[in-house]
Amino acid sequence: METLRVGLLGLGTVGGGAARLLLDEPDRIARRAGRPVRLTAVAVRDPHKPRSIDLAGVELTGDAHAVVADPAIDVIVETIGGTTAARALVLEALAAGKHVVTANKALLAEHGPEIFAKARAAGRAVAFEASVGGGVPIVQALAVALAANQIQSLAAILNGTCNYILTRMTGEGLSYAAALAGAQRLGYAESDPTLDVDGTDTAHKLAILVQLAFETSVKPGQIARQGIDRLELADLTYAGELGYAVKLLALAKLTPAGLDLRVAPTLVKRGAPLAEVRGPYNAIRVVGDSVGDAFFHGRGAGAAPTASAVVGDLIDVATGRAQASSRVASLWADAAPARPLAPPSKIKSRYYLRFTIADQPGVLGRIAQVLGDLGISIASVIQHDSGDDAPDSSPVPLVIMTHHAIQADLEAAIALIDRLDAVHASTVRIGVED
Amino acid sequence: METLRVGLLGLGTVGGGAARLLLDEPDRIARRAGRPVRLTAVAVRDPHKPRSIDLAGVELTGDAHAVVADPAIDVIVETIGGTTAARALVLEALAAGKHVVTANKALLAEHGPEIFAKARAAGRAVAFEASVGGGVPIVQALAVALAANQIQSLAAILNGTCNYILTRMTGEGLSYAAALAGAQRLGYAESDPTLDVDGTDTAHKLAILVQLAFETSVKPGQIARQGIDRLELADLTYAGELGYAVKLLALAKLTPAGLDLRVAPTLVKRGAPLAEVRGPYNAIRVVGDSVGDAFFHGRGAGAAPTASAVVGDLIDVATGRAQASSRVASLWADAAPARPLAPPSKIKSRYYLRFTIADQPGVLGRIAQVLGDLGISIASVIQHDSGDDAPDSSPVPLVIMTHHAIQADLEAAIALIDRLDAVHASTVRIGVED
Repeated sequence: METLRVGLLGLGTVGGGAARLLLDEPDRIARRAGRPVRLTAVAVRDPHKPRSIDLAGVELTGDAHAVVADPAIDVIVETIGGTTAARALVLEALAAGKHVVTANKALLAEHGPEIFAKARAAGRAVAFEASVGGGVPIVQALAVALAANQIQSLAAILNGTCNYILTRMTGEGLSYAAALAGAQRLGYAESDPTLDVDGTDTAHKLAILVQLAFETSVKPGQIARQGIDRLELADLTYAGELGYAVKLLALAKLTPAGLDLRVAPTLVKRGAPLAEVRGPYNAIRVVGDSVGDAFFHGRGAGAAPTASAVVGDLIDVATGRAQASSRVASLWADAAPARPLAPPSKIKSRYYLRFTIADQPGVLGRIAQVLGDLGISIASVIQHDSGDDAPDSSPVPLVIMTHHAIQADLEAAIALIDRLDAVHASTVRIGVED
Repeated sequence: METLRVGLLGLGTVGGGAARLLLDEPDRIARRAGRPVRLTAVAVRDPHKPRSIDLAGVELTGDAHAVVADPAIDVIVETIGGTTAARALVLEALAAGKHVVTANKALLAEHGPEIFAKARAAGRAVAFEASVGGGVPIVQALAVALAANQIQSLAAILNGTCNYILTRMTGEGLSYAAALAGAQRLGYAESDPTLDVDGTDTAHKLAILVQLAFETSVKPGQIARQGIDRLELADLTYAGELGYAVKLLALAKLTPAGLDLRVAPTLVKRGAPLAEVRGPYNAIRVVGDSVGDAFFHGRGAGAAPTASAVVGDLIDVATGRAQASSRVASLWADAAPARPLAPPSKIKSRYYLRFTIADQPGVLGRIAQVLGDLGISIASVIQHDSGDDAPDSSPVPLVIMTHHAIQADLEAAIALIDRLDAVHASTVRIGVED
């Protein structure tokens, strides 16, 4: 059969990994794809920069637009990242009649409607397994293998950098700053880690999973988002005493009030599979109305796991499966039966609360009364003896785990409590995953 | 687009679950499939038996051959089980130009070469997600999502009945017989549980996974197989003391000596995801050369999880993805690059050994010497004080965990040790998963 000719944009971690796999394993890939898959051209910013990868027989160019326009190319693999040049090149590729494989979650999360409208108009496939979950095949699982289900909920660890930082904070008692510095030394965090640690990257990936699982188009900006960058070690420690790990979760749940979407540090019961995900791994727990609960775990990033996803997508284009999926999936389409988003005020959750209070009698009682007045009941309390050495005037932590409460009620209670004289700092609030 | 017309053979747990999902969710399934998927005819042994499912508008017949031959049907779903009638009907269906969806692991494990040769000759698809792992989409994962990888190893819990029994033995200190009786009361085990507990069902499923992961056709009879039916609670307890859980694992590993295949109770380190799989769940750990380690976990059986898999396969047939996969996948084909099987004698593993010895000085030394003479080194030992009350003559257990040893050497050592006067019963040997 005819060779599938691949044009690759970008030769960084993702692009370099995909190029290496295509060049190292042509026989295996041809067998699985039913025809040869050949890396024909690679576009990079600087084609004269020395590279560790041997691109003999592959055209190396600085002109990405030329690769996209090249009639000798069937499919474009976009790994340059960002949303400006990548958007233009992907749209050009589709207009030129090429299929697209991309690892670019920001691009799909921000420009999904435009890109998939263009793909439908051009009759071409856009495959994006590598955009979420690294090596974990969660896109295929939701789009294909679990297609018979209405997904009820998703809970996922989608950012390996954050999970690595939280694992080290918990395991070694490191501060956030120390754990971040360690992650940067090992290459698990970038020198500017903002988009990872503030939850933006996770929100991008959640927007893609929400499209697949709930046929609903959301912009990342519509997702309530909190990062790990203001987490204190103390809260991880108290959570541990209560039997919980703290994880940065992407959460999506069908509720009577609508689709509840959040990215936030969250307490997960020890022993639950998500709580036990360590280091730079990703994991996704899916509940479907037919399949029940299913759990997927694997490497979240890195050249080889992402290459597995990108080349898997190329094999899917070569066999025609990706085109069959694109024909039926109304991804980011207006016609799709979107779900309304739940107003945050109506969301119900259990909460971990840490109050900073004066070490004097009666404070716990007053806080409990405010919570009770707003219908919030208490599941457990930690208040450690501050010790005989501590001056009576120094504030002490009071940790309360609530039963299910409506977020608006909880916020009202915290506002009242934070105005009490005996409360010395803003109350820390972290949701608890069921 | 044209309706996909489905003929269903069997209306037991799997067939009934699939029928219910097709009848309850036609809109959702049509949306995901790109066209209506209609349950047209159902063949059962006794069409007059009262049923809890409303089959209004569906032809119900006692003649499975007529359904298979019916030109108004596009795809046959085979859920009758067994390998005689099922084989004949599947071959007839393919000959009549129909695609086949099956949940029948015994059929594929025993007759895969014949069925897939027929499917290729007829240009039709055979889809079988429900045959392994219940709701866990491991077939799609290996065949499609991880297609860029050479799988290096698989370790899997594929029989929910066995895992339920082992979970209760470990958690509640029940004997095998008591745990089995409990599983039977709850419907997790059949009244004749032989094929589950002796490892046959797991070996059938492993044969299918080996075909997908290693392009190698093995008969279940070629897989070294040991069940859980002779496990003693004592060994689960000692394993726990050493920090391990005992699981019935299906194991497949590429080794320098060839493809090592086994079904056996195995010690898995506590904290490893496979060790933490509880109750009637299934889980599969896959290591691929590109993706690294990936882990899949979900419900192993039951009407709804299996229906998710069966209807997922029907959606794949409706979109044409299943046909695209069948065209390229050389499943159970002679042409496929099969791997030689490793001779069991050459397999290397760590081992848990329980000796039953006289409570007298020097026995541990003699056993250690035999092991040492055969190059087997000891990682840890448990020998509990038998207590002052016990008569000196009553035998005591001695538990030894070895480092990696060649199976043939270990067997020779056990044969020598079991002939020592101070050894009072056959030594128990259980492999340890790395």
